[in-house]
Amino acid sequence: MKSNLPDAQNKKDIRNIIIDKVGIKDIRHPVVYIDKNMNKIPTVGNFTMTTTLPKHLKGTHMSRFVEVLNEDSFEFNVDTFHKIVDKTCEKLDSKNAHVALDFIFFRTKKAPATGVESIMDYKVNFYGENIQSKSNLIIKVEVPVTSLCPCSKSVSDRGAHNQRSNITIKVRLINGKSLYIEDLIDIAEKNASCDLYSILKREDEKVVTERAYDNPAFVEDLVRDIAIDLNKNDNIDYYRVESENFESIHNHSAYALIENNKC
Amino acid sequence: MKSNLPDAQNKKDIRNIIIDKVGIKDIRHPVVYIDKNMNKIPTVGNFTMTTTLPKHLKGTHMSRFVEVLNEDSFEFNVDTFHKIVDKTCEKLDSKNAHVALDFIFFRTKKAPATGVESIMDYKVNFYGENIQSKSNLIIKVEVPVTSLCPCSKSVSDRGAHNQRSNITIKVRLINGKSLYIEDLIDIAEKNASCDLYSILKREDEKVVTERAYDNPAFVEDLVRDIAIDLNKNDNIDYYRVESENFESIHNHSAYALIENNKC
Amino acid sequence: MKSNLPDAQNKKDIRNIIIDKVGIKDIRHPVVYIDKNMNKIPTVGNFTMTTTLPKHLKGTHMSRFVEVLNEDSFEFNVDTFHKIVDKTCEKLDSKNAHVALDFIFFRTKKAPATGVESIMDYKVNFYGENIQSKSNLIIKVEVPVTSLCPCSKSVSDRGAHNQRSNITIKVRLINGKSLYIEDLIDIAEKNASCDLYSILKREDEKVVTERAYDNPAFVEDLVRDIAIDLNKNDNIDYYRVESENFESIHNHSAYALIENNKC
Amino acid sequence: MKSNLPDAQNKKDIRNIIIDKVGIKDIRHPVVYIDKNMNKIPTVGNFTMTTTLPKHLKGTHMSRFVEVLNEDSFEFNVDTFHKIVDKTCEKLDSKNAHVALDFIFFRTKKAPATGVESIMDYKVNFYGENIQSKSNLIIKVEVPVTSLCPCSKSVSDRGAHNQRSNITIKVRLINGKSLYIEDLIDIAEKNASCDLYSILKREDEKVVTERAYDNPAFVEDLVRDIAIDLNKNDNIDYYRVESENFESIHNHSAYALIENNKC
Repeated sequence: MKSNLPDAQNKKDIRNIIIDKVGIKDIRHPVVYIDKNMNKIPTVGNFTMTTTLPKHLKGTHMSRFVEVLNEDSFEFNVDTFHKIVDKTCEKLDSKNAHVALDFIFFRTKKAPATGVESIMDYKVNFYGENIQSKSNLIIKVEVPVTSLCPCSKSVSDRGAHNQRSNITIKVRLINGKSLYIEDLIDIAEKNASCDLYSILKREDEKVVTERAYDNPAFVEDLVRDIAIDLNKNDNIDYYRVESENFESIHNHSAYALIENNKC
Repeated sequence: MKSNLPDAQNKKDIRNIIIDKVGIKDIRHPVVYIDKNMNKIPTVGNFTMTTTLPKHLKGTHMSRFVEVLNEDSFEFNVDTFHKIVDKTCEKLDSKNAHVALDFIFFRTKKAPATGVESIMDYKVNFYGENIQSKSNLIIKVEVPVTSLCPCSKSVSDRGAHNQRSNITIKVRLINGKSLYIEDLIDIAEKNASCDLYSILKREDEKVVTERAYDNPAFVEDLVRDIAIDLNKNDNIDYYRVESENFESIHNHSAYALIENNKC
Repeated sequence: MKSNLPDAQNKKDIRNIIIDKVGIKDIRHPVVYIDKNMNKIPTVGNFTMTTTLPKHLKGTHMSRFVEVLNEDSFEFNVDTFHKIVDKTCEKLDSKNAHVALDFIFFRTKKAPATGVESIMDYKVNFYGENIQSKSNLIIKVEVPVTSLCPCSKSVSDRGAHNQRSNITIKVRLINGKSLYIEDLIDIAEKNASCDLYSILKREDEKVVTERAYDNPAFVEDLVRDIAIDLNKNDNIDYYRVESENFESIHNHSAYALIENNKC
Repeated sequence: MKSNLPDAQNKKDIRNIIIDKVGIKDIRHPVVYIDKNMNKIPTVGNFTMTTTLPKHLKGTHMSRFVEVLNEDSFEFNVDTFHKIVDKTCEKLDSKNAHVALDFIFFRTKKAPATGVESIMDYKVNFYGENIQSKSNLIIKVEVPVTSLCPCSKSVSDRGAHNQRSNITIKVRLINGKSLYIEDLIDIAEKNASCDLYSILKREDEKVVTERAYDNPAFVEDLVRDIAIDLNKNDNIDYYRVESENFESIHNHSAYALIENNKC
């Protein structure tokens, strides 16, 4: 059943300019992430969905992007995320589509001494695109950790300044390969001065304090050590690793970035 | 099994000063909201949990707040939210506790002409407290709507500026009474120039455009009309209604607030 | 010269409801703060300006608030801020007005060992109101500092976790009294484990690291010690002090609040 | 006078990994922008400053970046911004440096009917880099405007939904060429359905309402029309234009992007 109302978007456009990306931005929608252990993690997604608009068309059909989201409930992981990108291509009748999804990922961790379990949260972004039948998946995780300053430790008679740091790992998956976001999180956590926990009892606090003191790391060390691990990963052909240290002695951050395009 | 490590928090404090609120702030945790139709809505919670610290105690036990969250999965609605506040009192061995929870609430709506269903998102905050065995629940919902300016309509030969507005309704529930956040959302949406939808087909866009044009409302009208409805509600003894209109003709907002403490 | 266009705001309103606050929100405007040494500190202001609307009036005149800002350049300090509130009353022909102003305050500090000078930034909020000829001024400063955990220090053989904390001091000035925001900042900085600097050379880093280690403070200690200092201040009849510690071992904050209404 | 304290940053590094960018992030500092009319606009800058760290060095000297900011007061425009990048190279003894600066730019505008003057604010970002003696300048302005939906206008008997949109223009200047950010703002404002003002009297509100209604533009039209103007500009060899429309009928944005790398 077609509408009799005028369809302004379907008019011809004579300006002769392709629009690289057009669609909807920042729509919240419930989603379910399937984790490494095949557990279902319900969470809140924030989607930005676009296609490429050919020269001759005046406008895209914005409501169709939202229809893609509302047709089924959306369960996904690294291996199945492409389905929503494919569906966006179909629904919008386009050879190109780009879907970005931000969500909070939850993971249970055991405290290092008492073994008490608690849930940690991580910000994750999936960016999938189809470009003329070629598909790409870029995954970004933000991992909060502890960093302890080697300079402060070496010049001081006691103590050393430390702080929360935000490590961001962004990788592009090679087509046909897979990975787990849990493994990216592990890489960030094991290369930090110490990793974070939601519950730490006194025995645990002793462990994390001493562990951080025994593993001082500049913002430079954090990104280099993570880069070494990412260099070994055969499933990715690009990565970018950043660390932002929210310095406990300044009102600004220390920051470092390494980017590696293997292809 | 008690730890042999020193317990700095349990020391005496001689400064003679009560701390009104002490605890943890901004911890993300998965939660499930039970909506008006008894559907389970999984979402992401952001908790701030505090107790009052007596004069003679040096510190609180921060990890216990997080234990309250991690002991069970947390399903709640207006009638059962007090359980987590009660549990915080118990766990922290305190007569006072305050739990604030921010979450995104999702609700399915039908487009006004085509009836197409889509999901809308709303920011909600629950703030529950126990104060010396007296409990309170304050609920806040943020409802995005359309507002259309009566002045612009009256002075112009055609059109009228309109924009997205954020209506915030905050209410305090009378003890023993109940309400649904869906009903607060309805009050905001029906008093606006028009309400919002995630999917609107052309026929729907015609309806919402004309509805907004036929129902112009100043920021002042929005809060007054909502206040009239809240004045009739016997389940609440306090409300505050605000509207922030993200003016389409300015780079700032128009804003209005009405507060009514019935008790 | 009056406009012949209809004036929708000036119509009668029959709903019989006072609007507590109505006006403009979040408008950026250049301002100049006069500091303790009478230096002019140009900065960017963010204003929210409202008046109370009587029952019988349909709307306020939004453009007049912006005219208050645009008539002159705005230089101010604690003693002269009331002028803009008074002017808002006049311009809007109202007995009540409320003006909130957020701005970044800059202050030069000397590094503790080398004496190297650098500029630190602080978030400040002024909230002035006239209510039926009675005027009030509430001042809020946010002071980032270092906090070092006494528990972590006491249970660990080496090191102690520390982090940036945000201390917020909010005070209400007694009518006719004055104070300097620099003095509120000093109170926060001297009661922390250590204060922050923009430039620290190695000798300075040694000093701040050891100073923090020698002055461990729970979030509870921070707010209590600051409360003691504010209790002694005869120029204020209300204060609220908060500390949010961005824990280096967790992905959430520790938080404490003390409020004292002396009148 | 050299310090006798150990210099951890100057140690050899054996991991053999270049760090693309390392330095400080998000430091606030007072700056002065020189506008097109040579007026001095004092404002608040937010700086991120980095250099490239060679393989063999363990760390950079973070405090030197802050020294670059604190040595002199910083007045700048498009033609002189490179000085702070050059100075960062010198001070850090590096062939590469990257300086990003966010600031609020203020500009006086006359209301379209009454001619009343008021100040508008715009977010601007300068990103300057030196890479092995080659320098680049990338400028980004965010211009809030009104957009009015052609589809809504064409299907509706009266009115048309409109909203505030955020247009972002990012350009790379050709070496030796210049431009004014005022001209980029003008391009965004003239291609919108209407531009924004801080003060609009009733006569002005009539003009902007009717102007928007007479100039409907999809998010696609906004970016295409701006692209046409940027294509004509011989001073730039790259641009990216985006528009985000904060839809008044949805709780999400419509979005479009065109990117053009001329070289």
